[in-house]
Parts: sequence; C-alpha cells; structure tokens
Amino acid sequence: MAKIPVGVLGATGMVGQQYLALLADHPWFEVQYVAASPRSAGKHYNDVMAGRWQLPQPYAPAVGDLVVEDANDLSRAIAAVKAGRLGFVFSALEMGKDAIHALEDAYAGAGIPVISNASANRWTGDVPILIAEVNPHHTDIIPLQQKARGWDKGFIVVKPNCSIQSYMIPVYALIKAGYEVKRLFVTTLQAVSGAGYPGVPSLDIIDNVVPYIGGEEEKSELEPLKVLGSIVGGIIQNAAEPKISAHCNRVPVVNGHTACVSLEFGVKKPTIEEIKQIWTSFSGLPQELALPLAPKQPIILRDEANRPQPRKDRDTDKAMSVTLGRIRPCKLFDIRFVGLSHNTIRGAAGGGILNAELLKAKGYLGS
Amino acid sequence: MAKIPVGVLGATGMVGQQYLALLADHPWFEVQYVAASPRSAGKHYNDVMAGRWQLPQPYAPAVGDLVVEDANDLSRAIAAVKAGRLGFVFSALEMGKDAIHALEDAYAGAGIPVISNASANRWTGDVPILIAEVNPHHTDIIPLQQKARGWDKGFIVVKPNCSIQSYMIPVYALIKAGYEVKRLFVTTLQAVSGAGYPGVPSLDIIDNVVPYIGGEEEKSELEPLKVLGSIVGGIIQNAAEPKISAHCNRVPVVNGHTACVSLEFGVKKPTIEEIKQIWTSFSGLPQELALPLAPKQPIILRDEANRPQPRKDRDTDKAMSVTLGRIRPCKLFDIRFVGLSHNTIRGAAGGGILNAELLKAKGYLGS
Amino acid sequence: MAKIPVGVLGATGMVGQQYLALLADHPWFEVQYVAASPRSAGKHYNDVMAGRWQLPQPYAPAVGDLVVEDANDLSRAIAAVKAGRLGFVFSALEMGKDAIHALEDAYAGAGIPVISNASANRWTGDVPILIAEVNPHHTDIIPLQQKARGWDKGFIVVKPNCSIQSYMIPVYALIKAGYEVKRLFVTTLQAVSGAGYPGVPSLDIIDNVVPYIGGEEEKSELEPLKVLGSIVGGIIQNAAEPKISAHCNRVPVVNGHTACVSLEFGVKKPTIEEIKQIWTSFSGLPQELALPLAPKQPIILRDEANRPQPRKDRDTDKAMSVTLGRIRPCKLFDIRFVGLSHNTIRGAAGGGILNAELLKAKGYLGS
Amino acid sequence: MAKIPVGVLGATGMVGQQYLALLADHPWFEVQYVAASPRSAGKHYNDVMAGRWQLPQPYAPAVGDLVVEDANDLSRAIAAVKAGRLGFVFSALEMGKDAIHALEDAYAGAGIPVISNASANRWTGDVPILIAEVNPHHTDIIPLQQKARGWDKGFIVVKPNCSIQSYMIPVYALIKAGYEVKRLFVTTLQAVSGAGYPGVPSLDIIDNVVPYIGGEEEKSELEPLKVLGSIVGGIIQNAAEPKISAHCNRVPVVNGHTACVSLEFGVKKPTIEEIKQIWTSFSGLPQELALPLAPKQPIILRDEANRPQPRKDRDTDKAMSVTLGRIRPCKLFDIRFVGLSHNTIRGAAGGGILNAELLKAKGYLGS
Repeated sequence: MAKIPVGVLGATGMVGQQYLALLADHPWFEVQYVAASPRSAGKHYNDVMAGRWQLPQPYAPAVGDLVVEDANDLSRAIAAVKAGRLGFVFSALEMGKDAIHALEDAYAGAGIPVISNASANRWTGDVPILIAEVNPHHTDIIPLQQKARGWDKGFIVVKPNCSIQSYMIPVYALIKAGYEVKRLFVTTLQAVSGAGYPGVPSLDIIDNVVPYIGGEEEKSELEPLKVLGSIVGGIIQNAAEPKISAHCNRVPVVNGHTACVSLEFGVKKPTIEEIKQIWTSFSGLPQELALPLAPKQPIILRDEANRPQPRKDRDTDKAMSVTLGRIRPCKLFDIRFVGLSHNTIRGAAGGGILNAELLKAKGYLGS
Repeated sequence: MAKIPVGVLGATGMVGQQYLALLADHPWFEVQYVAASPRSAGKHYNDVMAGRWQLPQPYAPAVGDLVVEDANDLSRAIAAVKAGRLGFVFSALEMGKDAIHALEDAYAGAGIPVISNASANRWTGDVPILIAEVNPHHTDIIPLQQKARGWDKGFIVVKPNCSIQSYMIPVYALIKAGYEVKRLFVTTLQAVSGAGYPGVPSLDIIDNVVPYIGGEEEKSELEPLKVLGSIVGGIIQNAAEPKISAHCNRVPVVNGHTACVSLEFGVKKPTIEEIKQIWTSFSGLPQELALPLAPKQPIILRDEANRPQPRKDRDTDKAMSVTLGRIRPCKLFDIRFVGLSHNTIRGAAGGGILNAELLKAKGYLGS
Repeated sequence: MAKIPVGVLGATGMVGQQYLALLADHPWFEVQYVAASPRSAGKHYNDVMAGRWQLPQPYAPAVGDLVVEDANDLSRAIAAVKAGRLGFVFSALEMGKDAIHALEDAYAGAGIPVISNASANRWTGDVPILIAEVNPHHTDIIPLQQKARGWDKGFIVVKPNCSIQSYMIPVYALIKAGYEVKRLFVTTLQAVSGAGYPGVPSLDIIDNVVPYIGGEEEKSELEPLKVLGSIVGGIIQNAAEPKISAHCNRVPVVNGHTACVSLEFGVKKPTIEEIKQIWTSFSGLPQELALPLAPKQPIILRDEANRPQPRKDRDTDKAMSVTLGRIRPCKLFDIRFVGLSHNTIRGAAGGGILNAELLKAKGYLGS
Repeated sequence: MAKIPVGVLGATGMVGQQYLALLADHPWFEVQYVAASPRSAGKHYNDVMAGRWQLPQPYAPAVGDLVVEDANDLSRAIAAVKAGRLGFVFSALEMGKDAIHALEDAYAGAGIPVISNASANRWTGDVPILIAEVNPHHTDIIPLQQKARGWDKGFIVVKPNCSIQSYMIPVYALIKAGYEVKRLFVTTLQAVSGAGYPGVPSLDIIDNVVPYIGGEEEKSELEPLKVLGSIVGGIIQNAAEPKISAHCNRVPVVNGHTACVSLEFGVKKPTIEEIKQIWTSFSGLPQELALPLAPKQPIILRDEANRPQPRKDRDTDKAMSVTLGRIRPCKLFDIRFVGLSHNTIRGAAGGGILNAELLKAKGYLGS
C-alpha cells in the first residue's frame, strides 16, 4: 500500500515537532508537506530547525529536505494536492484563535481534510472532538458537516485538550459498562511541555508549582461533555454529565499530566473490583481495528501504592496508554484514583495521528 | 526577662534542625539542651552535625558547644532541670510511634512540658492538637490532663500534620465568621522536606511527581476534626464536620505545601467578597498577644491569577503566614481556592514554637 | 543623615527588581525614581508590576506609588535632580548595547552618576569595572573620566559579569598576599536567574544542563584582567595575567553560580594551609569602612567535603560573601577549589550597591 | 543460534535493573539467572521488585518468574552452569570492595566468566578495563590471567567508571589518529542515577549542585591510563599520558554525564577541522563486527552552539553513542569541547553488554 502523503501545519512548534517525530516511520502516512509562519517559509526544514528541534527523537531525513511553506498560502497546499504530495493535514497551528479557525476552514473548503490539535474549532457545533477509543462514532457527523458547508472532500475534526486524556478514557469505560458518572472532581499536575516552547520560564517552575494555567480549567470541565455528546440535527449536543470541577496546576515535569480524580456514580455503583475489571478489560475501536498507533490496552492499571508517576509511566506502549493507580474509596464521593497520560503524545500529536488512522480505516481519507 | 532554657529532642533530624535555626535568636527561649539517638550522645553538637546540617540558616553558636544527650536517658533531662538548664522540651523525635509515645509520657511525667511535633500523641484523647490561631482554648485541657495522669508541671501538647496548615486556618476563619463548612475536597502538592533527610530519593522526584505519601491522606482528613473539636469530659471530642477527602502528592519543591481546595458551606453561604473580607481581617490570639513568631496577618490574600506559589510565597512573614489565592466559585461545591504554607516552619517547628509562646503567655511554662 | 535619593533604570527587569528589594530598607539610599521602557512609563510601579514581581522579598511600599518614568527621557531625570528626588542612578537597563552606552553617557553628561550593571561600558577605557574588595582604587579614574569627557558631577562606573565573582575575590586575595597567579581554568555551573525573566525556558533546563551561555566565556576570561589592571594615562590598562580558560554551563539552579577552578602560581607557591589562612583573613576596604552591605568576611571557607552548594551557601551574610571549599592540590596546575556566590546579589545588584556605598564613602556621591 | 544463558549478579540494584532492561530482547543473550543479597533470595524476581523497579522500560516477562539466588552462594551458580542455565555473569554487585573482589574471583575460579561493572577489580593487574571501541586488544590478557590464576574457562573483565566515557572515546580517537594527548582538564556534571537508588537525596539536589562525588575524581584521572595501557609481562601497564585533572559535580539530571574538557596535544597539533574529521569518521571493532549494541557511530558531533545536552542527546543510538559539541580553541591548552554519554547505559550496563558481545565475537564465551 502506498503511503498517504500528509502535511503538518505549524511544523516548527512543539506539537508540530512531535507530529514529525511520531510520523518519522509511520506505516500509513508520510510527511511530504510542512508549513509554518511566513518567517520560516521558503527555507529547507533542516535549516529552519537548526538549534530549534526540541525532541530527543529525530524527524525523518526526507523531511529535512522539504521546503517549508507559508501556512497562510493555501495555493501552495492546493498545488501540493494536485501534485500528489498532500492528502490531508495535521493542524498544529499556533496563532490567534480566529486566524486558526479561518485557516482550518479554508483548507477544508479547498478539499483538504484537517485533523486539528488546535482549540479554535472545538466548539464549532458540527466539528467533533475525537478520542478514538471513546467517540469514534462522532465521525458520522463528517458527511453532515461537509453537506452543510458545501464541502466536497475536506472536513475538520479536532482532538480535545491534553488535560482531559488522563481521566476521560477511564470515565468513559465506566459509562460504557453501564454506570452513570454524575460528578467528578479533578486536580491536574501538568507538565511544562503543554505550554510549548519557550513556554514556562524556568524561574517560574524550578523548586516551584504554578497553580494556574490560563483557560485550562474551563477546557477540562467542558470538553468531556462534548466528547460524550450525541449527534442531533447535524451538530453535537453536549452530554449533561458528569459535572466537573477542575483545578489545574503546572509542575516541574517535562512530559506527562497527572490527574487526581474523585468520582460520584448514579444510583448504581460498581465495586472497586468491578471497576478494576472494567478498566483492565476495556478496549475500543482502535484496538479492534489494530490501528498502528493504538496501544494494546488503552488503560494500564498499576498495583503499586505510589503509581502512576509521570517519568516512569508516561512512555508506556508508545506513550499512548493511560496509566491508572490508587483506586480506592473516596470519603465524599464514591471512588478516587490517579490517572496519567503523555500530554504531547497521547494528549496531542499521538492522539491526532490515532484519529487520522481511525478516519483512514473508516474511509474518510480516500480509499 | 531571663530566657527560658529549652531542650530539643531529636535535635539532629530535619525538624530538630529547623527548631534550632528558628530558636537561634529567640527573645523568650534559649536552647540549652539537645538530645538525639545514643549514636550521637556524648559528642558536641558541632561535631555531630559536621556535614549534616541541612539549612541555609545556622544554629546559635552556643548550641554547637552543647554535648548531645541520649534522648532516651531521662535522668540527664531531670538533672538539667535541676541545674536550671531545662524548662521544657520541643519533641522532634524520629522513632517508632510507640517509642515516642512512651518517651513523651516519661518526660511529661518527670515534670517537663513536651511540645511535640510527632504524630504519636495526636490521637491521645486528652492531648490537644494545637494551631495557635485556631484552637488556643484547647490548652484548657492541660490541667485535666495533668490531673488525670497525676502529673505535676509536665504535660503534652502536639501540633498537627504539616499538610493541613494550608487550609485549616482559612477554613476556621470562615467557621468563626459564622459559616458552616460541610464538605471539603483537597489535593495537596507537598514539598520534599516534609519527608525529612535523606527522605525522598532524587531519582523519584526529578522530572516526576509521586501521587502518594504514606498515612498523609488519613491525617489530612481526620486531624482537622480534632482541631475543631470540643473539650468534653476531660477529652477532646472531634467535630463532626467538615467531611474531607484528601489526595496527597509529592512534588519537586524544596519547601512549601500547596493545597487545591473546594468547599461546601451549609445553608448560609458567604459571597466571594465576604470571604475575602473574612480572610484578610482574620486575626487570632497570637496576633492579639503579639507573640514573637506570630505573623502579623495569619492569612495573606494575593490577587494575581497565578499565586500562591511555593518558592515565592512560602517565606512570607517569617514563613508563618498562610498565603491564599484563586478564590473563585466551584462547579460542584461552593468555592475553590489555593492555599500555601511553609511546611517545616508554619507546618512544623515554627508552629511548635508559636504554640510554646502561647503556652508561655498563658502561664503554662512557669511564671 | 538624610538618605540620598536614588533612581533605578530598568526597574522592571530582574536585576532592577533585585535592586529595589535590596534597597527596600537601606540606611543610606532611598529609591525615589524608577525608570523603564516607554511601555511602562506613566503608570504607578505597583500597577506595572502586578503579576510581574519575581522575588520573594518585596520592594519598599513607597516605591509602589512612584510613577514609572521613561528611561530614555532624560528631561524627567534632570527635573528629578532639580527637585531633589534624584542623586544618582543604578543602571539595570536591558536594551541593545549601543543604546545603553549612549543612555549611560547621557545621564552622566547631565550630571547624574551612573552605577551600572550593564556590560555596555565595561570596555570603555576610562570606565572602571569595580569589585569593591578588589580594586577600590580604580575610583581614582573618576576625576580623569570627568575631565576627559567635560563632565561635572556625573560619571560612570560598572560592575563585572556575575560569573567572575565566585573566583576573582579569592584570586585577588592570593595576589594581594604576594603570589602571582599565572593561569586559571574555570568551569562555571550558573543559575537560571542570570538570564533574566523569562530567560531560560523550563523545557531547556529541567532534567538537563545547557553547556553554553552566549558571550559568557569571553567575559569570564577578559574582565578579570581589567579588574586587576592599572590606571595609566587616563585609562585602565589590563593586567597581563592570569590567563584564563572558561567553560560556562547553565544548570537547574535558581540562584548561585558555582565555579570549579584550577590555579597555577608563579615561581613562589603558597601551601594549602597558607592559602586557607590568606582567604579566611582576607578583608578589603568595604570591611574597613564597615559599609552597610559589606559582608563581614568576603570569603567564607567551608571544611566539609561537599561544599559550597548553591542552595545552602548562596545567602551567606546577606548573600554578599563568596563561599569556598574543596581546596586541594591540582594534578596539572597547583591548586583546585570550588567557589560560589549569589549571582543576582553579590554578582549584580548587591555588588552595585556595595560599589555605591564605596563611592559615597569616598565622597563621589556628594557630601 | 541458541542464545547464551546469562546471569546478573546484583540484579535488584540500579545497574542490575538496567542490565535486565537492556537484555530484555537481546539477540545473543538471555537472562536465566538473577542473584542478589540473601534478603531477596528464594523469592520470585517479580515479587522482590514490586514497587522497586525504577526504569520506564520493563524486564523480560520470563525474568519475573525466576527465583532470585543468593549471590554469595556459588553452589547455586555452579548448579545452574551444569543445568545449562548459566554461561557467564554480569556483575553489578553492590557490596564492600573486598567482598566483591573475593566473589568475582570465586565465580571466575568456578569457570564462570565475570563481566563486571564494579570497581573492585579495576586495579587488579591482569584484569583489563575494557571500552570496546578503545582497547579491545586488552582481551588478549585473558589467557594470561587464566593461566596465572589456574583458571579454566572463567576470567574477569571490568568496565571503567561511568564518568570517563564522555571523553575517553574522543581522546582515544585522536591518539589513534597519531596525535599525542599530553594533558587534559575535565569538569564533569554528573547525573543522579550514577549514585544508584536511593542514592542522592532530593533535598541535596533540587535547586542545587553538589561539587563532590566520593572517589570519582581519582577514578576519572587514573582509569584512562590503564585503558590506554599495554600488556607487559602478564599485566597491564598504565600509559604515562594524558595527565588528567578532574572536577566532578553532581547536578539535577536523571541520566547523562556531561564533561567540559580542555586538551593539550604534543608537538604535533591537529586543526579543529582535522579533529572534527577524526571524530566523525571514528569507528572501532564493535562497529566493524556489527555487534548488536554497538552504535553506528561511536561519536556523534553536533554543530549547534548549545549541544550536547543530557536530556536531548543521552539516548542517541540506543544511548550508546557519545555526543560531542562546542569544539573550539582553548585559551590555555589547545582545544576545548563538551562531551556527553548516558551513564547507566553507555557508562554502565550497555558498556558491559557491548564488552560481552565483543568477548563472544572473539570466542571467549564459548563457541
């Protein structure tokens, strides 16, 4: 099978870099198009990135020879499509929200599917926020989106904020098993890579904690409701529950968001043992389809009293598994646990690629 | 006024060191007696501590010349009392719980008041857990304790676990102002100094978080109820509320415990503005008595969106103030905020010294 | 004695903040003038700094009410001088080198002494690089500087780069004692605060070391030669020795630069014991004059095998002492040692204030 | 080809764990024997390690089911050899030097080759300190060692201290190219994993540097001379040069030792360009033999001004490459550079395995 040629918009930023690292050796996709700000445009990616590449893992050698395109210049992307060098794009744009919104619309309108990491379109009614194991059926809105917009092959899907991955898959597993989750307290301890580069100044975080991340608590409280929502009349209608209260903190950790969670169930309440059973046996469509970046087990349960820990657990199964531990009764709600996921892989680029693999498997990215 | 000669039991450990640093220049108390394990006994404190002193601040030069006593050898303490070199002791013992319990009893039984930092006696019915601004009236149990035990001048008081200081003073201020606090979620991000020395291995905490501290959640949930309790029939009866659920985490911070708190009030609910007013105007008996180590304001409120932070706020007002910020409505309970206090000063040695100052002012440590 | 009214240029930056913190309670100087970029001008310092103040220590309350001036607008400074609100300025400007050079000249030309932390004038021939304990006699160039420039009361003095303080005072003490220091290898481990704010991104320094700081090695190698130089024909002529090779590294430390040093003496070589004696007994003019910010001992020698350490030793004696340890023979040169100083206090604002105290004591800042 | 069954002595310690992680999927070797202290003996490795495994990478599932043996009980090892479950051992013993020396002798005497990570035998005259790319010919001493000791199939080889790997391969490459290296200054910035677990207390290293590691400077100065030595009369005679002065520091880095190096050549001096050419083209016997754990290029040269960095470069090519950067003239000697290697892989377990692969390829571990 020939690989699908893909583009990365915002290819010089942190999430863009993570996309390129993860796609360096992908069995289905091959990066043939990189776009960034006009400042970088016209130069070889190798030259643009000299001294700027942040990751221990490299990008594919062939990417280094690509000429960086101006992400705002749609004509270049259209030309690439015609030349067979671009099938769809991953959007890791770092601009103002309105600019991203307009630009993602423009790409989709030009027939180029957009799989976005940005938050700009998360609250667009007919754009699904996809977690491949949780709401793969939300891809059903794509034909409605295309029809409503008058788009042919293009469409937009997004992934949720990195902070919610550490608890949404386990919460969904419980819902899927038939238990209502009514209320949820979560306190996150988030890694600095979530803020991009240069991001968090070292003077703010060495020997310190910053108990605030702009906009993060709102995202952590609201996005799960759309992920759990239903397609009604061409848009996604939010679920009513769980009601969530989130405290978001930045801690001196490079990668890996930790979440301390307390859950309240509806009338029907599972035992701790049932919950463990539900989580360890949980499997989703990506596992069923054996998608390349799908972890074998979306949820890994650890027995040790002091796990999960970001440095020791974030890289589990290609950094795509969510690791849980400390499942115990809560003094106020029903149960408590700690969740952990890799924020720039499972929570960003890896999640985006898994969504693309799902869309490919479902036929949305060409035959 | 002649200074009261005091002793520090466990003078070589982390909390013992913090006591010596804070007492280096105290207007009322002067360290004339240091005791530790038999291993250190018989040597000068200077010699014992060569290469072991952990703090940037020094101990008093005179302390260096003291001969370290065996903390188990009560006869030495009794001799020191007779020689006028020992009025009372701060207990920062690091042994098994039963051993500490027995030893603190023995000192008190020998007529030596014990102001303890250890957890061994926290659940002894007639021993108060004192926070000087919150329950100074619990010292009223001292005569009852002495009578019941048949003790003359000796007695035992303790201070609570370091984790609860960041939220108990603000919670008490609200209760004092007439608002019931029914339920409380708290997630702590605790400094490594709380584990003593050598304590937390660096391999466990660089670029990492440990979402577990043995016994800490139980202490954080239960001790507040005794602090808020009442003296009934010679023992302290726990308050029934607030019900508390605590998640305790270790983070790569040297000093300063951060707490993310959500509160639920009773029927009568203060506004955010009323709460701010209550907290900034809160004052306790230590402030009224102008005790030497009392902060001018027990609670400091910061307006910035991203405060309090441990490195920037822990040292406020001799590291004895609790700094609060981010007071805002909670999506599930009534309000949310972030609290911070210095764990080895306000939360340990400083809190113990403030208790001693209170006891001195009330006449329990001799005229 | 009435305090001298002083100004801080660059009052919003990191070094400017450190000046304001250290001057909050100074016995001789009182900040009555703060200047920064046009962006901040016209607003109260309190308003400008809301959420930007980085230090645990506060500035003086009166400073908060000052209106920030535009540092480029000399007429405001001249008006302040006339109004008796400005006697001299500390320059902590953060601009291009040429702009700082021109601006410092302009202030001095307008009769306002400039005590600068910037590097712009360090290689101006008639501007001394002062370390108060090392080359206080270099202030003799001030009248020559004034005469050559046609300046009346104004002049410019600077302090050296923060990296050299950890070894220059000990090296000078040896030279003063009659030992030639011919060659010097130094590897520095420098704190992130040296890069200002936002400065070093946390993604570059958590669990990491950056073995490069732009321009730092050149400064570390050359500035000592001017500090040790002689006034010849109205300019300062560099000393010929020691020849220095510097490796400069950034490490995950908030404050405090560590230096690993190997020294080669001339023919006459002191013993380790003589060196210890020289260092512990070293004293300079600031100590003789008992200047307010002068440490009692400029050099503190520690015996422990594992000291000095930045977190434990940087704050010694108002953070103005240099702490040394590990004095031992070198396998290639004569001796080796480790030096440490607080980079933003001894190495920046504190060093600048000590220079101002010296100049005041010598009569250069008015009677 | 059937895999050789291997044992790991000290299998519960940090280096032992690293061996097990690296051998989890090795093409030539398979761990069938794990030994540790009597405390762990008799239990399954899975049970012993519950909560103690420190690495993000797992050990092989089959290892978890092995019963841990008492490393002191040689009869168990002999039985394992007879049963075909043990061909040779990796020694990662953590005991007193004399005990390790005696035990390694005993294993070798019993016919079991010992490939050791411990320092106990590094100065035994007929035991080579092997770096596979540098002195593979030192394996020629094995028959002499066996003959002198009266050993049959057993022998002992060791690897050098982790601190020297970051500079010895590049120094050797220069020597091999015909340039004498006379003198060498090195300052190391070493990761905490080098101290094992629990190792460095977090209170000693957060926001701090410790400028001392017991015994490390001596090892860094002397071991290179044996590595570069010659076999003369049945023992390895040290090389006379380079003379080395080492300053060793502990920094808050998890893995990866950084070395700042200044070199002085003999009369014949290469240019910077020649040096770059020598380093990038350097290749050793492991590369020629294409050993499984050999990096493709032993030396990676980076052009960026601020590399190598431990977090970004330590994992290059299975964490077995040494990364160099900042090659520039030295003000005192001839050239300066920065070197970096992964201390627990290239500098410990990985280096040991590469030595084993070399020995296997040369026929010393059976046909």
